[in-house]
Amino acid sequence: MELQNLTLHTDKYQINMIYAHWKMNRHNNIRVFDAYFRKNPFHNGYSVFAGLERIIHYINSLRFSEDDIEYLKTQPENYDEGFLDELRNLKFTGTLYSVMEGAIIFPNEPIIRVEARIFEAQLIETALLNFMNYQTLIATKASRIKQVAPDDLFFEFGTRRAQEADAAIWGSRAAYIAGFDGTSNMESGKRFGIPSIGTHAHSWVMDFESEIEAFRAYADVFPDKTVLLVDTYDTLKSGIPNAIKVGQELEAKGYKLKGIRLDSGDLSYFSKKARKMLDQAGLDYVSIIASNDLDENVILDLKFQGAKIDSWGVGTQLITAADNPSLGGVYKLVARKEKERYEPVIKISGNPEKVTTPGLKTVYRIINKQTNKAIGDYIAFVDEDVKNAKQLNMFNPIHTYIQKTVKEFDAVEILKPIFQDGKQVYDLPTLKEIRTYHNEQLSLFWEEYLRKLNPEHYSVVLSESVWKVKTDLMASKS
Amino acid sequence: MELQNLTLHTDKYQINMIYAHWKMNRHNNIRVFDAYFRKNPFHNGYSVFAGLERIIHYINSLRFSEDDIEYLKTQPENYDEGFLDELRNLKFTGTLYSVMEGAIIFPNEPIIRVEARIFEAQLIETALLNFMNYQTLIATKASRIKQVAPDDLFFEFGTRRAQEADAAIWGSRAAYIAGFDGTSNMESGKRFGIPSIGTHAHSWVMDFESEIEAFRAYADVFPDKTVLLVDTYDTLKSGIPNAIKVGQELEAKGYKLKGIRLDSGDLSYFSKKARKMLDQAGLDYVSIIASNDLDENVILDLKFQGAKIDSWGVGTQLITAADNPSLGGVYKLVARKEKERYEPVIKISGNPEKVTTPGLKTVYRIINKQTNKAIGDYIAFVDEDVKNAKQLNMFNPIHTYIQKTVKEFDAVEILKPIFQDGKQVYDLPTLKEIRTYHNEQLSLFWEEYLRKLNPEHYSVVLSESVWKVKTDLMASKS
Repeated sequence: MELQNLTLHTDKYQINMIYAHWKMNRHNNIRVFDAYFRKNPFHNGYSVFAGLERIIHYINSLRFSEDDIEYLKTQPENYDEGFLDELRNLKFTGTLYSVMEGAIIFPNEPIIRVEARIFEAQLIETALLNFMNYQTLIATKASRIKQVAPDDLFFEFGTRRAQEADAAIWGSRAAYIAGFDGTSNMESGKRFGIPSIGTHAHSWVMDFESEIEAFRAYADVFPDKTVLLVDTYDTLKSGIPNAIKVGQELEAKGYKLKGIRLDSGDLSYFSKKARKMLDQAGLDYVSIIASNDLDENVILDLKFQGAKIDSWGVGTQLITAADNPSLGGVYKLVARKEKERYEPVIKISGNPEKVTTPGLKTVYRIINKQTNKAIGDYIAFVDEDVKNAKQLNMFNPIHTYIQKTVKEFDAVEILKPIFQDGKQVYDLPTLKEIRTYHNEQLSLFWEEYLRKLNPEHYSVVLSESVWKVKTDLMASKS
Repeated sequence: MELQNLTLHTDKYQINMIYAHWKMNRHNNIRVFDAYFRKNPFHNGYSVFAGLERIIHYINSLRFSEDDIEYLKTQPENYDEGFLDELRNLKFTGTLYSVMEGAIIFPNEPIIRVEARIFEAQLIETALLNFMNYQTLIATKASRIKQVAPDDLFFEFGTRRAQEADAAIWGSRAAYIAGFDGTSNMESGKRFGIPSIGTHAHSWVMDFESEIEAFRAYADVFPDKTVLLVDTYDTLKSGIPNAIKVGQELEAKGYKLKGIRLDSGDLSYFSKKARKMLDQAGLDYVSIIASNDLDENVILDLKFQGAKIDSWGVGTQLITAADNPSLGGVYKLVARKEKERYEPVIKISGNPEKVTTPGLKTVYRIINKQTNKAIGDYIAFVDEDVKNAKQLNMFNPIHTYIQKTVKEFDAVEILKPIFQDGKQVYDLPTLKEIRTYHNEQLSLFWEEYLRKLNPEHYSVVLSESVWKVKTDLMASKS
């Protein structure tokens, strides 16, 4: 795959901050940043992480080209030549931990942790958040949609309405991670090996003198994989009867019509009518594909009404995450390494939920050994021994009286090393492996947490040590 | 600028349709497609066109690489080798008309018209819509925001929340076309020459022992362009007083503090307090920049309450068009060229607004000669002589009794030739020229059409000939 150089895909304040650090000779100081988000999108009970592969490519291709440097020279900041040389020599030398793509994640826990020279750690913030925020958003939306009809097929059809090309391409990958079965986007198919799917458009039908001629022509070219779009003129009077005719003609030649597609009108009513008409004509094997501004709520209602649809083409609502089109992931300084010691730092805010959680931390998923289900996530300093603890006191970090004591558990660390001192130490899994991992992760959760509407709240708690450092720092800063 | 090859950034059904056309030897037939949208986003009264430069680059770089061909060979469709050769030799040989970037546009009028071999016209649909839909959406959103405070400065700050990299980069360009003054995105600054703007983040402050040290350090590095973020700890008790101290220290050295930035809390209250504190300290020249999930509605309310903010950093709400995150642009077959004659075609739909308008058409903006204001847009066949008509009968194509007769007008054709027989015949304007053109276009409209809420409906009508062909075809097809 072509690695796009996106080194300047960053905010100017990052460049200006690293310049100021460089001017003050602070740029080699090691700092720790956590990336996390504060709220699940769509009022969902969880999110699905995606974006890591893109982030790894980005970091591996981090290089200021001479063009980039020339551009920086035109800026009114009048950057020193020595700084530009520092940029010329820049590559990522830091350490990065991340949860894996397909992971189930929750608000207020570190998803990615970066430990690096502030020069590098600050520079990469913008792109890292951009990739993580969008791809996680779409994977989460896709997961919601897939859950409504787990046995049906789902195809991502949104390219024309996506927010530009990268969104279409990376968005369809994110959807595939969370359970979609294919995409219409060929570039995505080529880059990632996602099955690419296509029927035909109204223009195919309109280009012929009659609908039946258009259908026959398509079936001639694709005898064993024809899906006919039946709503160019009149779905019930013309589209479906013509599709049946062509289906029978295909049968006579030893082929089978694969499907029909409904793209307008009442999908419940039309699909039931179509199913009956197809079955009566002996074409009970022909599947019915629906599209037209679908999302999880529309699909759930259609399923509930007994719509006879087995495949779904989902476009705009998925690829733009239309009801919640951004994930508010942030990247916050949590520790400064001074003389081999990690000094925790905090940001106070009038909004209590915006106060950061200080220190060099990691995240454990606490699994009940009996049920093999997740009890909660536990954020601890990296040097705390959580795995071998006999019991854990899990208390709500805001409402501390809400607590439970946990015994007989497995503590699974969900942050994994991706880069160590600049070296990639993580082998990129295949998309198939990511999908498998995603399904395994889903199975760790009681269905109450996965419900589309009003899911149960899943606990993400702080270790007593983290909580104490946080409350002490809050007291000292306010 | 590096031209990205996005030839496979298309839907599979386009490839399958052009394959089927090729198999039937119909692929060289000349067809006409119109691109248009059916509804302004955000309940706005108009939209602002953007995306043409990207479309031109895309068409100029249209080439199937051997990689692309190899990928197609892996597909279950088992495409003929002759077809793959046709793809290997493909370049755009058609004719494309478009409105210019920055143009004010309306629903149901052709924005782009493509006349080409169906082989090419069909292939480019997906990417063309993808670019037009997103960039027009963001330009329109930016135009709404800018109009709320036309004399203030607006900066696009949304990269981290954008829907992937292309959205951030092309979105900031679209915002600049419609009146924004700069962007935080450096790649966008480099590619397009948009002023890039940056202050500093909370992490800058948190990296120092105290806020005042952090402010002093930044002012040392950027003495003549420092903007200080004042909400890391306590805005009123610490942030603003510390900024004032540093402002006075800068003054003593002969410099001027440029601004402070508010990023949380009540922006109206804080900005008024800040203005008073700054003015009392003799720092009346220091500007106040606000950010934090702003959009046109929040900004209007803040202006109405007398907030003392002169610059606005607008992020998520702009770059994702959060309240309406897609534009539903479509691309419809309208004519088939048969024996040098353009035969109009139509698509019928149960939804009357989804019936297409047939024929090879263009669009005139009808300008009242006395007032120099636009009266309405007039869609006619290309061979109708609208410019020299003595009078025009403009009637509503649905409610035909609503009509007006127009005399003393200028008819300005808004569709311009971009490609003629594959050759680019249009010189890309500079961004400055596009911004000027956009402002000139805005001035042609009465403010009633431009209002943010409940704008007056602007007329887009069909010529009598177009209307007659359309109604006749509707009768024949239903």
